[in-house]
Amino acid sequence: MTGSPALQPVDPRAVQQVLDGRWAHVRQDAREMLGTPEYAVVHGESMTEARARISALTAKLAATGQVGLAFPAAYGGSDDAGGSVAAIEMLALADLSLMVKAGVQWGLFGGAVQALGNQRQHDAYLPAILSFDLPGCFAMTETGHGSDVQQLRTTCTYDPATQTFDLHTPHAAARKDYIGNAAQDGRMAVVFAQLVTQGQGRGVHAFLVPIRDADGSPMPGVTIGDDGSKAGLLGVDNGRLSFDHVPVPRDMLLDRYGQVAADGTYSSSIENESRRFFTMLGTLVRGRVSVGGSASSAAKVALEIAVRYGDVRRQFAAPGEDREVVVNDYLVHQRKLLPALARTYALAFAQEELTSTMHDVLIAEEPDDAAQRELESRAAGLKAVQTWHATATVQLCREACGGAGYLAENRLPGLRADVDVFTTFEGDNTVLMQLVAKGLLTGYRDAFGSLDGWGRAQFVADQVRETVLERTAARGLIQRLVDAVPRRDEDTSMLDRGWQLRAFEDREQHLLDGAVKRLRKNAATKRDRPFDVFNDVQDHVLATAQAHVDRVVLEAFVAGIERTPDPAAKALLGRVCDLYALTTIEAEKGWFLQHGRLTPARAKTLTSVVNDLLRELRPHMRTLVDAFGTPEPWLNAALLTEEPARQAEMAAHDAALRRAGTEPQQAATATDLAVAPAQ
Amino acid sequence: MTGSPALQPVDPRAVQQVLDGRWAHVRQDAREMLGTPEYAVVHGESMTEARARISALTAKLAATGQVGLAFPAAYGGSDDAGGSVAAIEMLALADLSLMVKAGVQWGLFGGAVQALGNQRQHDAYLPAILSFDLPGCFAMTETGHGSDVQQLRTTCTYDPATQTFDLHTPHAAARKDYIGNAAQDGRMAVVFAQLVTQGQGRGVHAFLVPIRDADGSPMPGVTIGDDGSKAGLLGVDNGRLSFDHVPVPRDMLLDRYGQVAADGTYSSSIENESRRFFTMLGTLVRGRVSVGGSASSAAKVALEIAVRYGDVRRQFAAPGEDREVVVNDYLVHQRKLLPALARTYALAFAQEELTSTMHDVLIAEEPDDAAQRELESRAAGLKAVQTWHATATVQLCREACGGAGYLAENRLPGLRADVDVFTTFEGDNTVLMQLVAKGLLTGYRDAFGSLDGWGRAQFVADQVRETVLERTAARGLIQRLVDAVPRRDEDTSMLDRGWQLRAFEDREQHLLDGAVKRLRKNAATKRDRPFDVFNDVQDHVLATAQAHVDRVVLEAFVAGIERTPDPAAKALLGRVCDLYALTTIEAEKGWFLQHGRLTPARAKTLTSVVNDLLRELRPHMRTLVDAFGTPEPWLNAALLTEEPARQAEMAAHDAALRRAGTEPQQAATATDLAVAPAQ
Repeated sequence: MTGSPALQPVDPRAVQQVLDGRWAHVRQDAREMLGTPEYAVVHGESMTEARARISALTAKLAATGQVGLAFPAAYGGSDDAGGSVAAIEMLALADLSLMVKAGVQWGLFGGAVQALGNQRQHDAYLPAILSFDLPGCFAMTETGHGSDVQQLRTTCTYDPATQTFDLHTPHAAARKDYIGNAAQDGRMAVVFAQLVTQGQGRGVHAFLVPIRDADGSPMPGVTIGDDGSKAGLLGVDNGRLSFDHVPVPRDMLLDRYGQVAADGTYSSSIENESRRFFTMLGTLVRGRVSVGGSASSAAKVALEIAVRYGDVRRQFAAPGEDREVVVNDYLVHQRKLLPALARTYALAFAQEELTSTMHDVLIAEEPDDAAQRELESRAAGLKAVQTWHATATVQLCREACGGAGYLAENRLPGLRADVDVFTTFEGDNTVLMQLVAKGLLTGYRDAFGSLDGWGRAQFVADQVRETVLERTAARGLIQRLVDAVPRRDEDTSMLDRGWQLRAFEDREQHLLDGAVKRLRKNAATKRDRPFDVFNDVQDHVLATAQAHVDRVVLEAFVAGIERTPDPAAKALLGRVCDLYALTTIEAEKGWFLQHGRLTPARAKTLTSVVNDLLRELRPHMRTLVDAFGTPEPWLNAALLTEEPARQAEMAAHDAALRRAGTEPQQAATATDLAVAPAQ
Repeated sequence: MTGSPALQPVDPRAVQQVLDGRWAHVRQDAREMLGTPEYAVVHGESMTEARARISALTAKLAATGQVGLAFPAAYGGSDDAGGSVAAIEMLALADLSLMVKAGVQWGLFGGAVQALGNQRQHDAYLPAILSFDLPGCFAMTETGHGSDVQQLRTTCTYDPATQTFDLHTPHAAARKDYIGNAAQDGRMAVVFAQLVTQGQGRGVHAFLVPIRDADGSPMPGVTIGDDGSKAGLLGVDNGRLSFDHVPVPRDMLLDRYGQVAADGTYSSSIENESRRFFTMLGTLVRGRVSVGGSASSAAKVALEIAVRYGDVRRQFAAPGEDREVVVNDYLVHQRKLLPALARTYALAFAQEELTSTMHDVLIAEEPDDAAQRELESRAAGLKAVQTWHATATVQLCREACGGAGYLAENRLPGLRADVDVFTTFEGDNTVLMQLVAKGLLTGYRDAFGSLDGWGRAQFVADQVRETVLERTAARGLIQRLVDAVPRRDEDTSMLDRGWQLRAFEDREQHLLDGAVKRLRKNAATKRDRPFDVFNDVQDHVLATAQAHVDRVVLEAFVAGIERTPDPAAKALLGRVCDLYALTTIEAEKGWFLQHGRLTPARAKTLTSVVNDLLRELRPHMRTLVDAFGTPEPWLNAALLTEEPARQAEMAAHDAALRRAGTEPQQAATATDLAVAPAQ
């Protein structure tokens, strides 16, 4: 229907191979070692039961070697940061509570000790961290400051007389909050606080602080609260920490980026306080990459459940036929599931590329500031886009499974509740998208400096073009594809990859140019209202960030297709990429029409091309979810086994009635619209 | 900024008065009688605890007289169907589990006995139903048939020898499922089953069937299952019912629309089986109206929590100032909350109008078929639109409250989980929107007949215009407003109400015309594929239904403003209506551009007019949520009391530091974008 050769049947394993990517061995290990019912979610647990089970499972997981990949080989790890992301994405397919618990222990807590601590601290703590003998917390967020972490109000003041820091929570808003491992298991915490020494604030630093003694009682001066029941993630013991002048020995400062001598003299290799802080944060980028990828795992599981259910579930008879229609055959059901599936594929390729870039940046001999800044921007954008996508996708899958989707036994409620907070933690998505926009506006140079008053708009404008046009993946191929499209593109097929790429690029470029122009104008006309200079274009700036991430994702998809060896799999992925590209353009149709990038006639064609793609991909829906390679025990949705059995039994019963000459209930048709009230 | 006089401060009570509407007395009674902490949600309960509490509270509620409004005065009710909807909307502000439990008992179960039963049955059962001494179920949906209830597979076969029916579940897919009151409390159930008598199927009928004895044990032949843990609504005991040849006495058929004589002779005043069934269902329309309105209650509570939090919560400093910025001052935060708030207002007026229409149709002396069909279509569309809106709104409010929004103590997780299934029960929203479309396509005539093969497309086309142009509210006023707009509207202000109304109307008309044309064409060209005739335009047809509901809602809003006595309140509501109208057009900008209804220049103006409206409405956000009149104890979100106290303490602490000459932490600015990793 799309003018190309019809798609051939595809072996899901050929697609899985491409999705598994550079860390295929890590993913396969996880399937083989952990792909059992023991690691599957348990439905309907109380918070107490869930916490106990997840704590025990986390300890067990520690022994598998699946969790320490990112740590140095000297401590039992594999020096494999990318592998650790792949491993946690696999855990997320099984259970998001387990994934978060592992992420807190080995990603945030262990990762902070590794990235911010010194050799002595590594020797002293990393082995017990890896083995989970020392469960720990990452205590950064405060009740009053989450997004703006530079403004944390907890203080840690050095006293040369005692050679200790005084860690203190000055008021309720400075309480550490939402801290995983705090309410139940944590023995130590990496606490972020404003370092004060010799009467001078030095900005936020991290301190290693015991919070419970060997009996599990809070240490003197430490008050531990429980965040209690949450929307989801019941197995994670989030809590609150307050410190009442708690003494912290000098050598418990994680001092890689800032040192305090015995006499209180402060030293650091990075002079600028803001820059120092963001350098410290930058070492923790792996957490954000893990969260984005794990959210996508939730989307994959939800789609597999909804697609498989929709392939057997029937409702309303086809006109003039005995059979009831399988719900995946309805156009509007395809309109829900298939674009979400296509976007999940696109994001999987983008996540793979991000993980790979992260790995290479982290193992590089020479630090590359520009690469680090770009990595952080990419991690922020993909975290936001993947977590929003996951929330929306799990929701649509819940609705696509009807009442069954609301029962805990069918997995979707738990997935929905667990993944919800992913849009908030590791950075509120809206704030992260602003971070992406800021990176674009400053051309990645000085990405974390202040843009106070936006006086630099002129500078910004000069930087823009080279930045945007920098390709992110498969540079040569993409340039060739784009170059091959004629400038007057009315006659170009919308399935032309170069046309799609250029549409995405064009949108990003135009939005960015517009944002810069408006900021420059505001900087001139709103000098007396500096807040409004930025705030008045905030929506425009965020749209720019979205367009940028969309383009990065499309380029990663194109590069992923290029790497696919199996021809049938490659053709299928090509069509999925078409659907991602064209539904993204369709969602922004207003912009493309408004800016003369689509004529009304082309916009109309777009709708029918998308619908043709849905029809073409319909027979491959099951293949596309099978290719995620999720171990069957992890799916753990009753309807996956029960609905096919029920449908078979009903069909046999209907057939028996027909043989006996008693018709089954006269079929209503799919165009009839009887609907039951609720119960 | 919008060229109109600036808005004056408004007393929320002046707005509340308009929102409270025709059943203000019912709403005020509920506030006074039930507006206590006892009726507020309890956070973090187990399912067992929630069920016990809600059952006890339901019994208590029975004694208040708030739940029987719809029943005849002879049985202790008030013959006030509209009032009963207002009452249940109030319960939904307090606790959605309680609302659903009450809805099952007095809406569905009691409502079915009332609407489908005879005088003797009323006398025998209604008193005990009203007092909750006889808790009951509405057993319609089966595991295998939810949307297509005409195809239920449970059978009820009459045997003249014993003068009993034989109620039977032939296979697992015919099991009654998701049935409220079934798992724990129900003593009887209204069971919908295929009636067979004298060897002939008579279609679905309702039977009153005891399911538990006085001790609470299942009756012989009745198997009761528990749906167990769900996403939300933990206080509602949903369960499953199967029947193994259960004998049902002849007089337990609810026989208002179909009677079986002792010898098995069937009689009915409605000959056509389908028509009879949908007439029966039509008497139950109150359930759908209640569900839509209750979902909107959830949206109101969520918005009040998010708006009040956003009015005190600060994050990032304003450039060049000491103060941190209140999050409601960010344009993008306004872009999230205010359009949702405007739409909530719009839907409130539409719901009020729907309830009023329903009430008048139900009390009419002479049944009016056309009015009944239109009511059912309106109820279906508003149920779908309100429940989707509620799910999306609670979600955005959750995200707008950040990590705090994820904690059970802050109410939003429970609201989110509870309201989720509202898009599914009382009819899957997508199926309901098809019902609306079908109503439009057939000009409300023969609305429930089959459109098999769509051979009637010609007939359809003839019906279209008069149907669409039928005004739904404030007919005269709206016609005058529309007529006053010049046909060439490039120069008309987008704040002109007539322009807005015409844009909505125009879109609906054009979509409907297009759908009819495409269906006619398909009927001719796809004769051999009757399923595809309809399925290929399903997306177009659903867009038509959406446009129709949007227009109905806007007209109701306009009529509501017209009824507002207080001039300041009227002006404010006018601006809120502008925002609803223009953000709806903005969301469909692609369509308006594609069809030449907006020029690119106008589309650009649209964005800035919307942003101006956000700035203009910003100071009134609090007024707009206060006007919902939700009793403070029902809000029950810890952050509403704790965050203002925390902010005050932090401000006092910062001020003390300044007085002492020690600056608080140097303020980062709102354009800086530090972001904490997750914990």
